[in-house]
Order: sequence, then structure tokens, then C-alpha cells
Amino acid sequence: MARSLGLDVDVVPGDWRHGADPDAAAERLSADTGRTYKAVCVVHNETSTGVTSRVGEIRAAMDAAGHPALLLVDTISSLGSIDYRHDEWGVDVTVAGSQKGLMLPPGLSFNAVSDKALAAAQDARLPKSYWDWQPILEANARGFYPYTPATNLLYGLREALRMLDEEGLPQVFARHQRHAEATRAAVRGWGLEVLCLDDREHSGSLTAVLLPDDHDADEVRRIVLERYDMSLGAGLSKLATKIFRIGHLGHFNDLTLAGTLAGVQMGLVLAGVPIKTQGVEAALERLQS
Amino acid sequence: MARSLGLDVDVVPGDWRHGADPDAAAERLSADTGRTYKAVCVVHNETSTGVTSRVGEIRAAMDAAGHPALLLVDTISSLGSIDYRHDEWGVDVTVAGSQKGLMLPPGLSFNAVSDKALAAAQDARLPKSYWDWQPILEANARGFYPYTPATNLLYGLREALRMLDEEGLPQVFARHQRHAEATRAAVRGWGLEVLCLDDREHSGSLTAVLLPDDHDADEVRRIVLERYDMSLGAGLSKLATKIFRIGHLGHFNDLTLAGTLAGVQMGLVLAGVPIKTQGVEAALERLQS
Amino acid sequence: MARSLGLDVDVVPGDWRHGADPDAAAERLSADTGRTYKAVCVVHNETSTGVTSRVGEIRAAMDAAGHPALLLVDTISSLGSIDYRHDEWGVDVTVAGSQKGLMLPPGLSFNAVSDKALAAAQDARLPKSYWDWQPILEANARGFYPYTPATNLLYGLREALRMLDEEGLPQVFARHQRHAEATRAAVRGWGLEVLCLDDREHSGSLTAVLLPDDHDADEVRRIVLERYDMSLGAGLSKLATKIFRIGHLGHFNDLTLAGTLAGVQMGLVLAGVPIKTQGVEAALERLQS
Amino acid sequence: MARSLGLDVDVVPGDWRHGADPDAAAERLSADTGRTYKAVCVVHNETSTGVTSRVGEIRAAMDAAGHPALLLVDTISSLGSIDYRHDEWGVDVTVAGSQKGLMLPPGLSFNAVSDKALAAAQDARLPKSYWDWQPILEANARGFYPYTPATNLLYGLREALRMLDEEGLPQVFARHQRHAEATRAAVRGWGLEVLCLDDREHSGSLTAVLLPDDHDADEVRRIVLERYDMSLGAGLSKLATKIFRIGHLGHFNDLTLAGTLAGVQMGLVLAGVPIKTQGVEAALERLQS
Repeated sequence: MARSLGLDVDVVPGDWRHGADPDAAAERLSADTGRTYKAVCVVHNETSTGVTSRVGEIRAAMDAAGHPALLLVDTISSLGSIDYRHDEWGVDVTVAGSQKGLMLPPGLSFNAVSDKALAAAQDARLPKSYWDWQPILEANARGFYPYTPATNLLYGLREALRMLDEEGLPQVFARHQRHAEATRAAVRGWGLEVLCLDDREHSGSLTAVLLPDDHDADEVRRIVLERYDMSLGAGLSKLATKIFRIGHLGHFNDLTLAGTLAGVQMGLVLAGVPIKTQGVEAALERLQS
Repeated sequence: MARSLGLDVDVVPGDWRHGADPDAAAERLSADTGRTYKAVCVVHNETSTGVTSRVGEIRAAMDAAGHPALLLVDTISSLGSIDYRHDEWGVDVTVAGSQKGLMLPPGLSFNAVSDKALAAAQDARLPKSYWDWQPILEANARGFYPYTPATNLLYGLREALRMLDEEGLPQVFARHQRHAEATRAAVRGWGLEVLCLDDREHSGSLTAVLLPDDHDADEVRRIVLERYDMSLGAGLSKLATKIFRIGHLGHFNDLTLAGTLAGVQMGLVLAGVPIKTQGVEAALERLQS
Repeated sequence: MARSLGLDVDVVPGDWRHGADPDAAAERLSADTGRTYKAVCVVHNETSTGVTSRVGEIRAAMDAAGHPALLLVDTISSLGSIDYRHDEWGVDVTVAGSQKGLMLPPGLSFNAVSDKALAAAQDARLPKSYWDWQPILEANARGFYPYTPATNLLYGLREALRMLDEEGLPQVFARHQRHAEATRAAVRGWGLEVLCLDDREHSGSLTAVLLPDDHDADEVRRIVLERYDMSLGAGLSKLATKIFRIGHLGHFNDLTLAGTLAGVQMGLVLAGVPIKTQGVEAALERLQS
Repeated sequence: MARSLGLDVDVVPGDWRHGADPDAAAERLSADTGRTYKAVCVVHNETSTGVTSRVGEIRAAMDAAGHPALLLVDTISSLGSIDYRHDEWGVDVTVAGSQKGLMLPPGLSFNAVSDKALAAAQDARLPKSYWDWQPILEANARGFYPYTPATNLLYGLREALRMLDEEGLPQVFARHQRHAEATRAAVRGWGLEVLCLDDREHSGSLTAVLLPDDHDADEVRRIVLERYDMSLGAGLSKLATKIFRIGHLGHFNDLTLAGTLAGVQMGLVLAGVPIKTQGVEAALERLQS
């Protein structure tokens, strides 16, 4: 039981290769007969690992336990790229940002908030001003903000939403899943391992690739950046130097993916990682099918 | 004694036509023998009234009282437009934003923080995460941010700082003072009253104009917007409909000011406010001298 | 009778303060019993003087003389700013550009061509390739160009035409006439003289201002550029140093005009030209009425 | 002997798979004892075929024949991408454009002109005004243009030249040659034929690919455009439907090329062209080596 922001936080440990475990949630919530948990917090798509948690099943576990905790979900790297159902899954607070699936520069953040969460916020004792929803809701209802918003990004947001609408959200989600599958085909083609181990939890936004033990993922990243002007994501914390991450979210198409995977493949070869150079080919086959 | 964010707040009332009163500060601080005040908060340039408080004199009052409170100053609408001395005036925390004197879109905010304030923050018991300086300072030292910053605005900031450097800060401040003086000349030329009553406290960023009792400033603003595509600031709270505000900050020159004042003058005439149409002329004379 | 491009050119001299003279045209055309004139060339709006020629009356003079010459008109600085009737006035070739009333960067030029002109071009013996209309017409009919066009400007053109349509061409023309009238009111207010002498021929796009004999217009221009960052047009050829020109075309509104005239007035004062400083005021009165 | 612009034009026929033949030039120039040829015109890099002519050898042939004709060279699709020597090769007029190797929108054209060509232009009898170098040279010497230039593109040109300088012209040329070689490796990997047959004449800017007789290159292009949002060049004139063209010029790197070739490979498969899907792999191997 850790503490953060003056709150007791009970972190359910994971192995970084699976999503949040609905069974573990069910177990803890059932055991919490005193209903001391105020909220269950889940990251929908974990950017550092490329694992997408099954939020709907977490919800089901909460319902089964009959637990009144709020469900809070971080969708920073999934909103607009991976199917997500705030209402259907009974999420109470969804947090999102502008800089991933919405294809904008960073600078906007979004909350979707349930009535239950709004009521809870009224009773909350944590002092807050900027983070207080009430003044924003009141001003928004009249088309305003209580503070100066990042105006220019709002124009960009309007255009981004038009683009997503034009393509259609189901098509956008399917496009990202297809690119994720082709990326995994490439990883298999190289004879490497995808970090995420559960087929139900592969991320549509990014894929983390595990290197053989004696190779340094940061060296691969350095070579790819220098030689091909492409920045791959680093492994964080306990995954540092062990993985690199391939992003395939937002405004992205088959040829961007092909160029991306080509850069990774050439970088792996140059870094001396023992791979089969059949990753790009495998991805192209997957894209064609 | 009000409360905000769980803190006792002692607001020194004002008449909205003068800045924060150094004497009032001196009096309260001297009376606070128990040293219960943790901080003195001042807005350097009050955007809603066009009054610039004499922060240096507030500092002197604090020093005279030998009071250990922190001095916190909001420079949102003055930084880069009106002379301001964080170090010289012994300010502990200066708050600023990108969207005024720095000539950028809204979306960045800045803190300048004294060692004393940093130490106080270490001991502070208000729970915080996003507002915690420590992780930002640590990451900044290595050229990073602990969170995703508004990257694009940082490029704009670099260019804005170059522009201010190229002109020279003393020249930038003098330019705004000159435009503020010409604006007040226009207001006198119209036979109207500037809201700010103390000559030491006129804002270089904006000027608030008081209308005769039976005229509605929002009607003037509506006409100017419709006819001349120019948006004037509204009176807020108890000044609503009584004043309008003329901004003259940031990237602004003599001819922009002339056009601005021409729009105000024509709008006043169209709104039926009984003015002398000699404001623009008076401003031009002031600019020429 | 001069020669240009291997052609005999008969220039009808003017005094630079009036437009092309329909009577002079009538006289020459009537006298040309051998029908040797192939074309009458007129500049609709003369950028160097601020005089708009009465093209419709030139057409009437040609018709009255029963002369078969083509009518060729340059509308570089009038199209989209001053009323112009290619079809109604029976113009054979109208030449225009992107960089004035169409509010775009320079880089596109336009021709409107009558059937008569197309037929004449077929018989013309002047060698041409880039200037040949036929390949362009054929390609344009299929949505193409025979050469690589300035693609980016075509996107800008689409937007510029939308803007003109949204405001309405009659409104756009009226706006420019109104600004031209206000500018002339300013010139009279200064006690100076407008170059154009015929009330039927004042340009809606720009106004040329004549200085007293012993003052140098280029000195006024230099001061206005240095002090106010505004570039006024120079007098050309025999008008050099005698006039300066105030542009008021394209994307331009009342406050831009007010700022422009303020800069001119202050520049005149600084240059020591003996003016009454009532020009801006006079213009504002005209704009309000 | 054809005629164009009133001039006799003697076109040396080619097979569209080789560059301009220096031997043929030598032969005709030697035979031209009357020195009737005024100029030899060569396209440096033929955009429609991907063949780069050996301009230096054409020059040598002219010198060997002691023929005084001018040498005029079109470098539209080579300048800034393929090594070219206006002075060293004694070219009299080089023609270039902004929209290829200079990485700008279309809208600027350039001439490099020898003293000999300038002298010839003085004596030329073809009527010209816009095409006359003299007024441009005179105005340029003072930093001006005789007409309104495409100002915005000049700013872009300054930046483009900085970019080329920063990378270094030899490096830029080598980069394009390397991409051209990798592209040809891909074509061989597919089991297809490069249109250009002479190893000395492969273009660094683009590669034309010949399809088997019974396949329609425009169908491949249509599929690639629809499925992969990539526009390939069409075969022109007698090559229509027989070839498509892959551009690899300007701002282009290894991963852009990889994406490009992936799109071509997948499009060929989808169009039912019988290829080996080893083109991309072959190109990546070539890029790595």
C-alpha cells in the first residue's frame, strides 16, 4: 500500500507483458468488504509496453463484485486509434490528450466524466482549483472556458475530428489493428519477440520489441536515428535497453509503416542483432492479404 | 478571511482603480506578529483594470515589516511588455504565460522560483503532482520534461525571445509605455476617463476606459466588433458594462495603435456616447512628439 | 509611332493625371480608314498614378468608329477590387495577376480571351510557345495544364475566390470605393492634392498624393518606412519624388486604412511637409457617415 | 527538319532508352560545314524516361567538330539532384525550375547564361519582352526585378539553398545516386526491366520501370494511388501504359524510398503483374551495404 497525493494507493503488480488483470481486480474488490477503495485506475493502452488492457472486463469484474468504486481510465495513447467505450464500459473518468491518436501537437487534455464521478468530485476533500471540473462545465455550457484555453489547438482539434469522421472511426480502428498485425508479422519475420504476450491485448498504437539478452536496444535506436532520421521509443524503467517501441498510431498508412519497418530492419542489421532480414517482406505480405 | 484550496486567504480590498497598496501590506504584515501569513500574492498588471501594481514597493513594505512571507506575483499580462524585476524585487514565485507579451498562442505557462520558495514547497502539505516543481527542475536540468510539453510552442518561444532580444527589452518596455501614453491622450481627447487613477500605476499593456454612467460599454464593444472586426476587452464583475479595455501589448506598433484607436473612436460615435472626436488626433500628436 | 516586339505602336500621350481618353481613341480610330490598327491597349487601373480609365467608353468609341481592332485591357491592379466588365464592355483580352485584388502572393497571371481574339491569335505570325493560348485551353478543358502550373497558388486562389464570393463582389467594390473616398478626404484634410484630376477616374485601389514643389516624396516614404514600418509606393518616371502612393486594395478594412493614413500623416509632419494634421480625422468622419 | 517558333529544328531521333548520342551530335555538326546550326539543345535528365544524357560528351563532340553552335541544356529535373557543370561543360544556357531538386513549389524558373549566349541574344531577331534577359540582368544587379517576381518562393529558395549547402552538394548527389541504385536493385528483384539501357545514363532523380507486354502500367498506377495514396509517374506518348516512373529526388531519404518501393511492390502484386516479391528486400540490402 503506497501513498500518492496523500491517498493510499494499492498497486496491483504486473509483469509488464500483460494488461491489467480483471481477475486480480475481481479478487481485491470482493475482498474489500469495507468498500474502502474509492477508485480503480487503469491505463487503456500502456505506451511503455504496447499492451492494451481489457477495460470492459475490468468493468465486469467490478460489477460482479458489486463494488461502488469509480473506474478511471487513461486513454492518452489509445483515444482515436483503438476502440474504446466510455459509456458502454461504464467508465467514470476517461483521460485523453491531443498528441497521439488525435494527430495534434501536445497541449490539450480531455476528460470524459460520468455523473457518478461528478457527484464524487463534489464531496472530495482534496483541494483543487485548476483541476476542478465544475467551473469548466459551467463555462463550456456557454461556449467558454474559465481560463484561457490553448485556442489554436482547438482549431486543430476541429479539423482532426473531421478527418476521423471522414474516414469513420471503425475504419480508423481497423487500420491501426492491421498495421499492428503487420508489425508483429515483421517482428516474427526477424525472429524476435513481441513484448506483449496475450493475443487479446496487443496494442493497435505501438508495438514493443524485445531484443536477445546480450543486445542493447538503445544502440539500435541510436543507429536508426542517426542513419535513418527515425526516432524509436525507448524501453523505460526495468525495460530500459531491453526493448524498443515502434509507433504506428495517428495519421499513418501502409507506406509509412513499410518505411518504418525498413528502418528498424536495417538498424537491427547494422547494430549486429542476429535477425533474419525477412521482417519487411512478412509485413508487406500481411498488408496485401 | 476567506478560504481557498483549504487555505485561509486574507484579501486586501481595493477600489479597482488603484494597484495593490504597499501601505496596506505594511500595516497587515506588521500587525501579523505571529507570522501567520505564508505568502503575499500580487498581480503585477491587472488585466481587468489596466492597473500595474508597484511590486517593488510591496517588497519594501515586507522588508520593512521584517515579515518572512513569500512574495508571489502574477505577471501574465506584463511579462515581456512592462518592466519587471524578479530578482531585484525579491519575488519568490513569478507566474507568467505565453499568450500576452511573449506573442505566442496560449498554451505555455512559466514559473520563476526563488530558493526560499523551493524550500517552502518541500515542506508544503498541499498534495500535488502536476504542480510539483521538483520533477520538472530535475528533468529540465537534463533538457527534458517529466511530462509531454507543448513542444510546438517551445519553438515559438525561442523565436519570440529572439525577437524581444533583437529589439532590446528596454526598447520593448518603452514602446509599450509610449503606446499607453498615446492611448490615454486619446481617452482625454474623447473627454472620457481612464479607469486607473494613479499616474504611477498606468498599465503599459492595456488601458481601461470608463464610460459616462448612462452608456453601456458592451454596446460600444458590440458595434466595434461588428463594424470594424475588432474585439475590445469587456468590463468584468462589478465593472461589467461600465468599462471597455484597449489592449496594446505584444507585437504592436504605432500604426496598429492608430487603427485601434480609430476603431474605438468611430465605435463610440456610432454608439451615441457623447465624445469629442479628437482622441485619435491627440494620440497621433503624442506619438509624433 | 514607336516599335515594340517588332510591332508598330502608336502611343496616345496623356498627362498622367487623367485616364485613357475615349475621344482621342475615337479620333484616331476614325482616322484609321485603312484599319491598320490591330488592337487598342488600355490599362484599366494605372498603378503608378491611381487613375482608372473608363474602359466602357473606350469600347463605345471603338464601336462608334466601327473599327475592328481588338480591345486589350490590363487589370493587374483592379481585378477583384474595382468593378470591371470583360463581357459587357466587349473586351477581347483581359490580363490580370494574383498579387493585388486576389490577395495572393505574386506568381499567377490570368487571361480572359474573346472568340475574336482567339481567332486573331490563330492567324498571328509572332512566334510563340509559352504564350500560345491553344495548348492551355485544350489542357484546361480536361482539368490540366500543358506545363507545370504554380500549384500552391491555385489552392490559394480557390480560397481567395471563396472570400470574394462570401463578401459579394458588389460589396467588395463598394468597400474599396469607400476607402478611396476616405483617403481623398484625408488628402484634402492635409491640404494636399490628389494626382488624379477627374472625379470619374479616381482609383478604388490606390491614391497618389502630390507634394508641394519643394518637398521630396521619397523622403516622406523613407521616414514612414523607418518609423512606422510601412512601405508607400514611389512616384515613377516623371513623377519620381513628386508623389507617393497609398494602396488600399485587397484584404483591407476601415482600421487598416485608419492606421495607414495615420502613418502617412505622421510621416508628412516628420518630413516637414506643411500640412494640416486633419487628414485622419477627415477620413474617419467619411468612414462613419 | 521540323519548324518551331519559326525556326528550323533538326531533331535527332532516339529510342527513348538511351540519352542524347554524342556520336550523332558529332556527325551532324561535322557535316554542317555551313555552320547553319545555331544551337544544340539537350535535356540533361529526361523526366519521361529516367535517362540522364552525358552533356559533357556532347560538349566534347561540339568542340571536336569545332562548331560554334550554342549549347542549351534543360536541367529541370536534375538541378540540385544530379551532378551538373554549367561552366566546366561549357553550357551556354541552362534552364532549371524550382519544383524538383530545389524542393520548392512550382513557380520559379532559372537561366544560367554564358557571355556567348548573351551576345547571341543581342543579335537575335525573335521578338521578345518577357523572355529578354537584358532588363532582368540590369535590375538583378541592383537587387531588383523588372517585373513582380514570385516573392514568397524566393524566401523558400533561400532556405532550400541553405539545406543543400548544409548537406553538401556532393553528398546530395551521392544520396540520389544511392537511392537510384537501390531502386534498380528493387526492379531487378521484381524480375522487371529498367527502361534506361546504358549504365552510364541511369537517372539519379527517377527510375522508369518497363512492364511485361500484356500488363497495363496505368492500372498499376491506379491501384497504388487508390490503395496506398502514392502517385507514380505515367508513361508518356509512345511509352503510355508501358512504363511507370518512380521519383526519388529532392527531400528524400532511405525510409521514404523503402516506403515508396513497398507501395510499388504491393501494387504490382495487386495488379496481377507476375513479379518476384523480392524487390524491397533487394533495395534494403543495397541501402545497407
